[in-house]
Amino acid sequence: MQMTLAELAALIGGTVEGDPDLVIEGVGSPESAKEGQLTFAEKPKALLAAMQSSASAVIVWEDAKAAGKDLIRVGNPRFAFARVLDAIHPEERPAPGVHPTAFVDPSATLGEDVAVEPNAVIMADAVLGDRVVIGAGSVVGPRSVLGADSRLHSLVSIYRDVHLGERVVVHSGAVLGSDGFGYVDTPEGKMKFPQVGNLIVADDVEIGAGTTIDRAALESTIIGKGTKIDNLVQIAHNVEIGENTAISAQTGIAGTTKVGSRVIMGGNCGIADHVIIEDGVILGARAGFAPGKRVKPGIYWGAPAVPLSDKKREMSEVRRLPKLRAKVEELLKRVEELEARQ
Amino acid sequence: MQMTLAELAALIGGTVEGDPDLVIEGVGSPESAKEGQLTFAEKPKALLAAMQSSASAVIVWEDAKAAGKDLIRVGNPRFAFARVLDAIHPEERPAPGVHPTAFVDPSATLGEDVAVEPNAVIMADAVLGDRVVIGAGSVVGPRSVLGADSRLHSLVSIYRDVHLGERVVVHSGAVLGSDGFGYVDTPEGKMKFPQVGNLIVADDVEIGAGTTIDRAALESTIIGKGTKIDNLVQIAHNVEIGENTAISAQTGIAGTTKVGSRVIMGGNCGIADHVIIEDGVILGARAGFAPGKRVKPGIYWGAPAVPLSDKKREMSEVRRLPKLRAKVEELLKRVEELEARQ
Amino acid sequence: MQMTLAELAALIGGTVEGDPDLVIEGVGSPESAKEGQLTFAEKPKALLAAMQSSASAVIVWEDAKAAGKDLIRVGNPRFAFARVLDAIHPEERPAPGVHPTAFVDPSATLGEDVAVEPNAVIMADAVLGDRVVIGAGSVVGPRSVLGADSRLHSLVSIYRDVHLGERVVVHSGAVLGSDGFGYVDTPEGKMKFPQVGNLIVADDVEIGAGTTIDRAALESTIIGKGTKIDNLVQIAHNVEIGENTAISAQTGIAGTTKVGSRVIMGGNCGIADHVIIEDGVILGARAGFAPGKRVKPGIYWGAPAVPLSDKKREMSEVRRLPKLRAKVEELLKRVEELEARQ
Repeated sequence: MQMTLAELAALIGGTVEGDPDLVIEGVGSPESAKEGQLTFAEKPKALLAAMQSSASAVIVWEDAKAAGKDLIRVGNPRFAFARVLDAIHPEERPAPGVHPTAFVDPSATLGEDVAVEPNAVIMADAVLGDRVVIGAGSVVGPRSVLGADSRLHSLVSIYRDVHLGERVVVHSGAVLGSDGFGYVDTPEGKMKFPQVGNLIVADDVEIGAGTTIDRAALESTIIGKGTKIDNLVQIAHNVEIGENTAISAQTGIAGTTKVGSRVIMGGNCGIADHVIIEDGVILGARAGFAPGKRVKPGIYWGAPAVPLSDKKREMSEVRRLPKLRAKVEELLKRVEELEARQ
Repeated sequence: MQMTLAELAALIGGTVEGDPDLVIEGVGSPESAKEGQLTFAEKPKALLAAMQSSASAVIVWEDAKAAGKDLIRVGNPRFAFARVLDAIHPEERPAPGVHPTAFVDPSATLGEDVAVEPNAVIMADAVLGDRVVIGAGSVVGPRSVLGADSRLHSLVSIYRDVHLGERVVVHSGAVLGSDGFGYVDTPEGKMKFPQVGNLIVADDVEIGAGTTIDRAALESTIIGKGTKIDNLVQIAHNVEIGENTAISAQTGIAGTTKVGSRVIMGGNCGIADHVIIEDGVILGARAGFAPGKRVKPGIYWGAPAVPLSDKKREMSEVRRLPKLRAKVEELLKRVEELEARQ
Repeated sequence: MQMTLAELAALIGGTVEGDPDLVIEGVGSPESAKEGQLTFAEKPKALLAAMQSSASAVIVWEDAKAAGKDLIRVGNPRFAFARVLDAIHPEERPAPGVHPTAFVDPSATLGEDVAVEPNAVIMADAVLGDRVVIGAGSVVGPRSVLGADSRLHSLVSIYRDVHLGERVVVHSGAVLGSDGFGYVDTPEGKMKFPQVGNLIVADDVEIGAGTTIDRAALESTIIGKGTKIDNLVQIAHNVEIGENTAISAQTGIAGTTKVGSRVIMGGNCGIADHVIIEDGVILGARAGFAPGKRVKPGIYWGAPAVPLSDKKREMSEVRRLPKLRAKVEELLKRVEELEARQ
């Protein structure tokens, strides 16, 4: 990489403050950027780190107070820096074509410029849109459909009848469309409740490594447009998730629960079945909800989760219990003294 | 699908109430069933939904109060509906045969009508019973044995010397027989404690996507007959699980713990090592037990888990702490007043 | 296996107490060892079990009080027993060579005696050190490097530019180098923050089945020498972990958190982002830390985690709440009585 500050500013629509001809040769984080590198700061703390680093230039917000380094001022430094990264580290995609070690069932339909990496398997009647990439060793089940520009990294499992929209990204080890966990108790043991529904994933969804999303028992499990799911998340049968929701790692969402749009879940949340989480809800890490709850917009924490301020108050109450107990003991003594004087 | 209500009733041993010649063309859930579809209800709430849906017919329990739709009455509506699903959506199994892209070691033994899908790998001295299905890209390690009618979905890893019974189903991404987490601290760092035991999975077990079950250090990790394990569950070395137990997603069971039969675990339970959970225990989601506990039959919740009613009382106590504190403050004032009057 | 007690004692540097010519034909755990087998005990409880088992001989510590069985006395019985296991159950490694069903890109570099099992994939410019084993179906991404004697079990995913040291072991289903969970909110939805850093895993690390470790956004995610990671662990982008640390199953560590050396984490711990955990910290199962915390050496439990003794006191306080409440009610009555007498 070799770009001048002026070229970078033009790329991201920013204003240079300093030497426009300064040559940038790489990028780094605010804490670790080296000489010749560009970094960014969207908050005062990161700005301090960036100014103290060896970075040669910093992308900062419009009215950031910063002096001593060459700057590019923009409205949204994080967004601008991400665009720089995109420009200088464009995503590597394999060349189009089906690798000779891959197996593509003759009944499958492949769009233009599809890339199927070594040892991948595309089963009967699957449909791959234009420019789809199937990573090495991944398996696409019968009749499953991947929209244009979608990408499976290596060793992804897609069961039968799974529909992915366009620009969907699925990371390694993820499993989409596995059977939901449903059984009927009988005198002879647990009989499987056949899981005959499907899984629909809308456009622009990203699914993390090792995440599992079950198909519906009947009808569809649904992941809405633009939703991002981290690693090792479990999404059960018949769950419906809205748009632009973010679900952090190791969260589990049980059957038939509905999660709205623009919801944010911290790591390892646990949502029981038949819960309704409305649009815009924010859950702290490890938040949990019992079956059937309806969760109004707000910030929640704890398990069972309550509004964040309630949880903090509760924790503070518990922490002050020894003092409360001491106070009660003291009161007891004083009452005894009063009683003795009667 | 095209079946009359009379045919469906005959299939499931039920009684038609309404038009026996009504033609059913599909199935749906109580909430979403459409015209021409059959649904079911095993509880009043689902019955209400089913009666309000567009479903053309409903499977209900013997004395359910329902009017306005054609019905089939049976003893166990959920069981009956599952049998309908089985009849109209029979499991898809690949045609027998070893796909040319699969690799089967010449020393492996294959029963009759075994299907090995593309790019699967069967290693030395493995044994596959009659009608076993090995999903695309799955790997069966040396000397491992799969009983008749067992099925691995795609990308399952079976290590060496793992024994699966008959009709075992393993979902994608599951790993069976990996090394347990055992080390010896030495001045040079952690030395691996060799994991030389094996893993035995009995008949009729189903194992979810991404679940990991470690082999024993010595002797065997054991999963009992008919036990069902959900996605992303971790079962450590030397664990023994009884029969017809159900373990929900993201639960973890540490080394040498024994879980009885007909136990039910909610999602994300965490059971430490050397715990003994007796037959019939029910654990709410996120229940946890410390090492060495013995858990008698009952319903438990919390971490450390206590009987459900104790946990609810404890939560209620904590919630009422602000009021308790206020009461103590008030008492203090009244005592001070009393003291002042002395 | 057929070794005399004298031969075994020579192997592990121990002293025979009993018949040096006793022939040992196998090994077992203290609880289950059978006649002809050797077992070990490092603590009185295990010693009792071992002496009551059918084991023919027991490895015990130097001054263990034990009589009635042939013994080998050593300084560290667990270490000695592990060495016996190593000797009699040496790790099975496949014969060197690239299996004809594997795909190795012509630009990859393979050291001496490398074994690539069936259907594995080695992509462009990857480098495999001497005696590396790539398990069946595993995928090594472009430019990734595996040091000498490292081993991937079956179906491991290694992304691009991942560096593994020597003697690294990775279990099935693990994913190394996947994209971190980073987005920029824009009016059009979440834009991916490109994850252009890498992942560096030092020598002698072992990584469990289904574990996911993300590459850094910028710079490197780092796992230090000798660290051991259990199954289904999630390690986010830019995390740095020291040496000889042990992380139990289903633990999650969020972005940019630093974990020291010789740290021990129980199962399902949850560490938020930007936490610093110092050397030698011990975390009980399910311990959790909020973002930005600095954790000094000690033993912690709970979420948010506090020193173990504080957590135990807090739990005891909560358990005694009903009694405290009763005491307050009694006090209230006595104060009312006092007031009535005024």
